[in-house]
Amino acid sequence: MALIVQKYGGTSVGSIERIENVAERVMRARAAGQDVVVVLSAMSGETNRLIGLAREINPRPSERELDVLVSTGEQVTIALLAMALEKRGQPARSYTGAQVRILTDSAHTKARIRRIDTDRMREDLSAGRVVVVAGFQGIDEHGNITTLGRGGSDTSAVALAAALHADECQIYTDVDGVYTTDPRVVAKARRLDKITFEEMLEMASLGSKVLQIRSVEFAGKYNVPLRVLSSFSEGPGTLITLEDNDMEQALISGIAFNRDEAQLTIKGVPDSPGIAYRILGPVAEANVEVDMIVQNVGVDATTDLTFTVHRNDFEKALEILRRVAAELGAREVSGNEQIVKVSVVGVGMRSHAGIASRMFKTLADEKINIHMISTSEIKISVVVDEKYLELAVRALHDAFELDRAPNGAGH
Amino acid sequence: MALIVQKYGGTSVGSIERIENVAERVMRARAAGQDVVVVLSAMSGETNRLIGLAREINPRPSERELDVLVSTGEQVTIALLAMALEKRGQPARSYTGAQVRILTDSAHTKARIRRIDTDRMREDLSAGRVVVVAGFQGIDEHGNITTLGRGGSDTSAVALAAALHADECQIYTDVDGVYTTDPRVVAKARRLDKITFEEMLEMASLGSKVLQIRSVEFAGKYNVPLRVLSSFSEGPGTLITLEDNDMEQALISGIAFNRDEAQLTIKGVPDSPGIAYRILGPVAEANVEVDMIVQNVGVDATTDLTFTVHRNDFEKALEILRRVAAELGAREVSGNEQIVKVSVVGVGMRSHAGIASRMFKTLADEKINIHMISTSEIKISVVVDEKYLELAVRALHDAFELDRAPNGAGH
Repeated sequence: MALIVQKYGGTSVGSIERIENVAERVMRARAAGQDVVVVLSAMSGETNRLIGLAREINPRPSERELDVLVSTGEQVTIALLAMALEKRGQPARSYTGAQVRILTDSAHTKARIRRIDTDRMREDLSAGRVVVVAGFQGIDEHGNITTLGRGGSDTSAVALAAALHADECQIYTDVDGVYTTDPRVVAKARRLDKITFEEMLEMASLGSKVLQIRSVEFAGKYNVPLRVLSSFSEGPGTLITLEDNDMEQALISGIAFNRDEAQLTIKGVPDSPGIAYRILGPVAEANVEVDMIVQNVGVDATTDLTFTVHRNDFEKALEILRRVAAELGAREVSGNEQIVKVSVVGVGMRSHAGIASRMFKTLADEKINIHMISTSEIKISVVVDEKYLELAVRALHDAFELDRAPNGAGH
Repeated sequence: MALIVQKYGGTSVGSIERIENVAERVMRARAAGQDVVVVLSAMSGETNRLIGLAREINPRPSERELDVLVSTGEQVTIALLAMALEKRGQPARSYTGAQVRILTDSAHTKARIRRIDTDRMREDLSAGRVVVVAGFQGIDEHGNITTLGRGGSDTSAVALAAALHADECQIYTDVDGVYTTDPRVVAKARRLDKITFEEMLEMASLGSKVLQIRSVEFAGKYNVPLRVLSSFSEGPGTLITLEDNDMEQALISGIAFNRDEAQLTIKGVPDSPGIAYRILGPVAEANVEVDMIVQNVGVDATTDLTFTVHRNDFEKALEILRRVAAELGAREVSGNEQIVKVSVVGVGMRSHAGIASRMFKTLADEKINIHMISTSEIKISVVVDEKYLELAVRALHDAFELDRAPNGAGH
């Protein structure tokens, strides 16, 4: 009998009616002969309500007590779903993270899972019961309640699926799968049937925020097939899995973009060893995260360095860079907040040359100037002016024929 | 250093502001050099809100899941109080029933406490921390969350005080102590400084619902000094303790009454062995609880039996009684819903005769007819017409001089 872990987020359990819908979905899985473990978030808005209460009492509440407080949110939804299943004649048992037990480290509000006991869940499943587990929470070795941080319910679900060797981990959200790009930008964007863990990581970290990055990493590490589906409609969703021969043989799986970045440039720095560190060290020390970094040879034994940071950190980074420039005797410092990063992602890149040049040609044909280029094994990212975002994404979507479902004869 | 267990009910923690007040009260106890363990209920209304959600989902939710659901109520308040204490510079730790651990049997929604682990609490107290425990809840030997039933937080507090050998268990409520009778009926009613466990049990079970009966029984059994105080005003409250020489030397401690009863009479039943059982057996089988029972010798080798039940059960009991009367060939069945039970309570009765006759004379002087009389070691109860309730209670309050504080020379 197949064992499925299903995870429903806050909007999927946001009201009594929606919890009833989740129960119906679980009943269908049971009717299809599947053993089911359900992982739930708190009702949407509940975690924020609880944090609001905490801040009213204490602007800086201790993280230990915050975890005691907010972990009640999922405890409410698991009990309600178990009741909804029992009403339908389906025996069910709810468990908090502590009850399971999901053992974590002691890093309150951002704990990491160390181990999951599965004996009790297996016993319930053998007895024909549905197991309903509170996501997002666990317990440390001293018995303190911990939480995994925002979005941690995805991680709980994947970790449970891995511990139980489940056949699939289904993440129900308010979108019906992973798309070739954002459908709000490209109307022809197409839902992908399959995508690899690596591609999903690149897509997620680049701004397609369907799944928590940590949960995808986890799923990849333990090879847990992960499926993203909508809890509000039917459909197969998107399966995230290992690369295999059966995989869609597309060159490119999708186009991601990120509007949250800003670009900084320092020009005419003496080109000596350790110069990158002398420039970026102070930035890192100020807790500013740097994304893309490009260094070019400049003129007269000097060099130019360009990097991107989150837009919220732009002013701070610019200030640091001006100070560093003065110390190093750099020629010029400049910054640009009106940029976006556009990336094409796909494991097909590994075996096919010419992706980069096709990308650059497409942008050139549209007269879009490229400010920065950065590549990885399965991704090529460019920085362009923000005003060209839609044009660039649509042109690339067309150029790589992402609106058409690939088939084996595609290339 | 004295160790105090303080318990605050739902209205005392019903808002952020009130939780702050509780924190202030705990700080005063700390400033007075006391170690403090706090036991909290859920915010008033929260338990009912949660049960409402459950009933929306499932009209007959399983008790196991109900316990998972409603136990979140106290988990919220303990975290918030711990945060309020930390804001005031007082280290604190909150614990759910499962975390403490308060081991109970598996009778969900009405579990009984079996054992309490105190190691962790003692460690916290030694380190100068205030321990904040969720009342009303525990965990069974299989790790299931249990609750003790309504009002169970009082029981939690007393059980913790017993396990920790606390010097006093303080129950904060919305009244400032135990009174000689209901001040709404007798304006001169006086707060008692002390009362014995036994007297309190008689007062509570007779309708002065200040404390849960179970918690008083528990306190008496383990000799935990129990103090009832107001969480909204200052004052010493009422200490409930063992009878001692230092005790107020009053004949009578208070006058209790109960408007919730109804009286049923069956007359002219053959006076044969087992007749009481043949009449009351069917009543008990219908789950109707019988309070007072009086049997009189009737005429012609017959007997009359009168008993009281809760008014909600009156019609049901009357129907059963008519059926039984037909079977037994009884002469007459009658019922009266317009009655009240009035009781005088006091350990002084043990050593002083004449209490009953003073009570009966007082009622006779007021021309109040007595329907039933029942006595125990420290209580005399009478049933009278409901319209005489206020008159009877006031006359007895005067007759036993309950408005005056007793002193050693009182008798």
